[in-house]
Amino acid sequence: MTDKYENPTSDDYMGVVMGIIMSGGNAKGLAFQAIQQAKAGEFAEAESSLNEASEQLREAHDVQTDLLTRLAQGEKIGWNLYMVHAQDHLMNAITFKDLAVEVVGQEQRLQALENK
Amino acid sequence: MTDKYENPTSDDYMGVVMGIIMSGGNAKGLAFQAIQQAKAGEFAEAESSLNEASEQLREAHDVQTDLLTRLAQGEKIGWNLYMVHAQDHLMNAITFKDLAVEVVGQEQRLQALENK
Amino acid sequence: MTDKYENPTSDDYMGVVMGIIMSGGNAKGLAFQAIQQAKAGEFAEAESSLNEASEQLREAHDVQTDLLTRLAQGEKIGWNLYMVHAQDHLMNAITFKDLAVEVVGQEQRLQALENK
Repeated sequence: MTDKYENPTSDDYMGVVMGIIMSGGNAKGLAFQAIQQAKAGEFAEAESSLNEASEQLREAHDVQTDLLTRLAQGEKIGWNLYMVHAQDHLMNAITFKDLAVEVVGQEQRLQALENK
Repeated sequence: MTDKYENPTSDDYMGVVMGIIMSGGNAKGLAFQAIQQAKAGEFAEAESSLNEASEQLREAHDVQTDLLTRLAQGEKIGWNLYMVHAQDHLMNAITFKDLAVEVVGQEQRLQALENK
Repeated sequence: MTDKYENPTSDDYMGVVMGIIMSGGNAKGLAFQAIQQAKAGEFAEAESSLNEASEQLREAHDVQTDLLTRLAQGEKIGWNLYMVHAQDHLMNAITFKDLAVEVVGQEQRLQALENK
């Protein structure tokens, strides 16, 4: 019997890959939006964009953890460049969001100093 | 017939991989240079370094899109750690450049406040 | 004869993968710690956390370079999602640390302005 994510052309495989790519893309978009909102002085909105980004990343991270757990339990996961692309999207979105939090924080303090 | 990027030891394969690695590395170097230029108060130069970085990333992104399109159309792309490394270089260079833009912007405002 | 990292279920393979994942994770943790220390005004501690992060990344980067060198010399490296995950952890930790250096630097100058 073939493992769930063994065949890279299966609907299961492409479904999980596209899901991670979408969540990663959404999360980065939301974190980028947060920076723009902060620049416009909309810090409450920036915070909620960052929270939404975290939620998207949590979902995608759970899917990634499931994949890695299956692998650790001996299931096979097929090679496909889309899977690598999905992992890159997710891990880079996490990096971008984590740093966007700092950019938003420093933006707030810059504006406070500028308005002194 | 073997697909263009099916054999990881072919010149085509290594050519595309090395091209993405070089563009990604160049782009990160240019974005890093932009931050140093901004620190030295050279904001026009910083902006042009960031623009050059974006251009390098656009080229590498087009190559990546071609790979993923071929895959979606049923072509095979062989597994090789260099291909993963290339994807990492590109996606991390995009993340670094996107955030370097913010660092440069905040650097300009910090210097304005410091020189008040 | 099988190459050292050809079989993804071998102890050698999983050992190198887990090593890179751990170093990458440690490095990101240390860079994140540096940002928190900077926010608390502990800039000497922040600098040493960043130096420790760099050391962790140097070690993992040497392991990665060994893998890529073996590949260039014709050895086979097996496909496994954990290897991709390890590469992602390392490359994203490098990106995060490089930008954390800038966040810490700007944090110091923000505090100087705020305490003027």
